Amino acid sequence: MKITEIRDIVVPIKSEISNAFISFSEMTISAVAVHTDVAREGKPVVGFGFHSNGRYAQQGILRERIIPRLIKAGPSALLSESGENIDPEKAWTVMMTNEKPGGHGDRSVAVGTIDMALWDAAAKIEGKPLFQLLSDCYRDGTADRTVSVYAAGGYYYPGKDVSALTDEMRSYLAAGYTTVKMKIGGAPLAHDLERIEAVLKLLPAGENLCVDANGRFDLPTALEYAKALAPYKLRWYEEPGDPLDFKLLAEVAAGSETPIATGENLFSTVDSRNLVRYGGLDPETDFLQMDPALSYGIVEYQRTLTMLKDEGWSSRRCIPHGGHQMALHVAAGLDLGGNESYPGVFLPFGGFADDLPVGDGKIKLSDAPGIGIETNSDLYAVFQTML
Amino acid sequence: MKITEIRDIVVPIKSEISNAFISFSEMTISAVAVHTDVAREGKPVVGFGFHSNGRYAQQGILRERIIPRLIKAGPSALLSESGENIDPEKAWTVMMTNEKPGGHGDRSVAVGTIDMALWDAAAKIEGKPLFQLLSDCYRDGTADRTVSVYAAGGYYYPGKDVSALTDEMRSYLAAGYTTVKMKIGGAPLAHDLERIEAVLKLLPAGENLCVDANGRFDLPTALEYAKALAPYKLRWYEEPGDPLDFKLLAEVAAGSETPIATGENLFSTVDSRNLVRYGGLDPETDFLQMDPALSYGIVEYQRTLTMLKDEGWSSRRCIPHGGHQMALHVAAGLDLGGNESYPGVFLPFGGFADDLPVGDGKIKLSDAPGIGIETNSDLYAVFQTML
Repeated sequence: MKITEIRDIVVPIKSEISNAFISFSEMTISAVAVHTDVAREGKPVVGFGFHSNGRYAQQGILRERIIPRLIKAGPSALLSESGENIDPEKAWTVMMTNEKPGGHGDRSVAVGTIDMALWDAAAKIEGKPLFQLLSDCYRDGTADRTVSVYAAGGYYYPGKDVSALTDEMRSYLAAGYTTVKMKIGGAPLAHDLERIEAVLKLLPAGENLCVDANGRFDLPTALEYAKALAPYKLRWYEEPGDPLDFKLLAEVAAGSETPIATGENLFSTVDSRNLVRYGGLDPETDFLQMDPALSYGIVEYQRTLTMLKDEGWSSRRCIPHGGHQMALHVAAGLDLGGNESYPGVFLPFGGFADDLPVGDGKIKLSDAPGIGIETNSDLYAVFQTML
Repeated sequence: MKITEIRDIVVPIKSEISNAFISFSEMTISAVAVHTDVAREGKPVVGFGFHSNGRYAQQGILRERIIPRLIKAGPSALLSESGENIDPEKAWTVMMTNEKPGGHGDRSVAVGTIDMALWDAAAKIEGKPLFQLLSDCYRDGTADRTVSVYAAGGYYYPGKDVSALTDEMRSYLAAGYTTVKMKIGGAPLAHDLERIEAVLKLLPAGENLCVDANGRFDLPTALEYAKALAPYKLRWYEEPGDPLDFKLLAEVAAGSETPIATGENLFSTVDSRNLVRYGGLDPETDFLQMDPALSYGIVEYQRTLTMLKDEGWSSRRCIPHGGHQMALHVAAGLDLGGNESYPGVFLPFGGFADDLPVGDGKIKLSDAPGIGIETNSDLYAVFQTML
C-alpha cells in the first residue's frame, strides 16, 4: 500500500463566545485527508483528521514541513512490517525528522492533526473502530464501549445573563448529560458565585459541576477562588493560573479542597511530566486534560500515558480536552476516565457521531470503522470537499 | 505615523552541517520588512527582522495570525503616546490577541521575527542604534560598546575528521575569537574526547572551549560525559538532555564540575522560569542562552530578564543563542554577558555587520541606526527584495 496524497483545508469555526482569556471570533481549524491506494467496500481508504478548537489552523507548518516529509518518505518508513497498513509510530518519526527538541506549540497541533488521519486510515484498513485498534496496539484488546462525557459550556456570551446560562445548562441536562462545566474568571468573584449557585440549583450535587478559569488568575486570585469554591464541593476547579506556572498550581492545589483539573495547554509528554513532577497534584483526586489532537496525536499521547503510569497516575484520571470524536475513541480504547463534550458549539468539529445518544452522562461508541467521521453528517461534509 | 505594510519572505539557509539532533539540510528562515510612513534621510523608514536558525520559517503563522492583527489595529494600539513612534510593547499585545497561554513553540518565532523588525524601525525613527534605545527604554541609558562573542562551530560535517575540525577552530582564532564551541554527542564519547583534546591544544586554557550536546543525552550518558569532561575545566557543558527535562538537568548539574549552559530551546518567560526554578542551576557559575528572536522577541526577553532578577540571576549570566545582530544589540543594551557567533555558517543571517571587527574575542558595535542590517551587505541584500 501507499499514501497517495495528503490534502488540507482551513475551516473557520468562529463563534461569538469567549472564555476568560480569548475571544473565538476568528478561530480556525485545519482538516486533513490522507488518501491511500487501499480499497475497502470498493473505494480507496481515506483517513480524516482535524484538531480541537483554541489553537488555530496550521496550514503553514503542515504544508511547509509535516506533509512534505511524509510524501517524500519511502513506504518502509511509514508502513507496518507486512507493508499492508500504515504504522503511525513510524510516520510520527518521519513527521518529526529534523525538528529540534523543546518548543511544543503549534507544531504539536499540525502533527496531531495528521496523526489523527493516519490512525483513522489505519483503523479503516483494519476494518475496526479506532478504539478497538488502539486497545489491540497498546493494551489487551478490551475496550470501554461507553465513555462518560460532560458538557462544557457556560461561556461569557456577550450580554448573556444568569437566566440564559441556566437555560443553556438545562438544555445539556435535557440532552442526557449529568455533569456540566462553566467558565469562571471572566466576571468578579461575587458574580461568578451567583452564576455557580444558579447552576447548582439544577444539579443533584456539587460534583456534577466543574468550573474553568482558563489560566487567568494570579496566585492571590486563584487562592481566593479556591477558598470561595470549597463549600460547593464541585467536581473540579480547572486551570486556575498560567498552564506552565507549576509553582502557582502547587500552591493552589495545596489550598484547594476542590479537586484540580489541568493540562489542556500542555502539548508534549515532557511538558506533562513537568506538570506531574512539579504541579503538586494528587493522583488520587485530581484530573489531567491533555488533548491528543493538539499534542502530537495518539502516538505521543500513548507516551504520556506510559510516563503517567511511571509517575504513579492511573489513566482513569485522564479526561481529555477537546470534545471531539478522536478523543472519545482514545478514552474508550486506552482506559481513560471520560471525555469532554461541547454540545452545540465549535460545530461541526465539536460533538460526536449523529447516532451516538447521550444517556446517563455516557456515550456508546459505534462500530463504524476508524473514527467514524462518516457517521456525523455535518462533519463528514467538511471532509468530502477533500475527496 | 503609521505602519503602511508588512512584507515577509522565506529564505532557505540549508547547510550540509548537522548537530547531534537534526540535519540543517532543509532549514529555512522568515525575513520580514515593516514599512512605515516616517521619512528619515529622505526615505521611508523600514524595520527589518528575521529569526535564528533551527526552527524553520513561520510564513503560515505570520500571514494567518500575527501580521493581520497588526494591520487591523488602529494607530493608538501600536504607537507611543506622542504617536510619533512604534511602541513595541503595545504591538506585542496586539500580536498576541486571542492567543491562549502555553504552547510556546513556533508562534514564539513568528512574533519574535516581527518584534525584531518593530524595534529596528523604532530605533531608526529615533535615529539611534538599537542597543542605545534598549538601554534608554529599560535601563539607565548606559550600554556596553563592546560585547564578548564566542565562535560556535565544530559540527559533524559528513566526512569531517579531527584535522578538519582543528583547521576550522584555527580559522576562528585567526579571525580574533578567543573562545570556541564544538558539538559533542554525535560520536562515541572516546571520539568526542579525542576531538576535544585536539581543539584544546590550540587554546590557552580549558575555559576557552565550550561543548554542546544539543539535548541528545539520557541521564546516564549525560553523567558519563560530565565525569569525562571535568578534568578539562571547560567553559561550559551545554544542553546535556532534553531542554524541558529539568529533573535530568538538576542531576547533571549536581554531578558536573563543568558549568552548565542551556536555554536556547525555551521560548517564553514562563518556560525559562521553570528552568531556573527546577533545573538545579547555579546563578554564580552557570549560563542561560535564551534567544530573543525565537522567543517572542525583545519585549518578552525583557520580561525574562526581570524574572531572572527576581529569581536571583544577574543579566550577565545570559549569553543568547543565535549569533545574530539583534542579540548583539540586546547584549550591549541590556547588560548581558556576551553573545554567540557562527562564523561562516547560516549566512547571511549568522554573523554581524561587515565593519565590526572581532578582536580579543570582542565585537565593537557601530552607531548605525537600528540593528544595522544595512551595514551587512549580504544580509541587506535579502531585505532589499522587500523594499
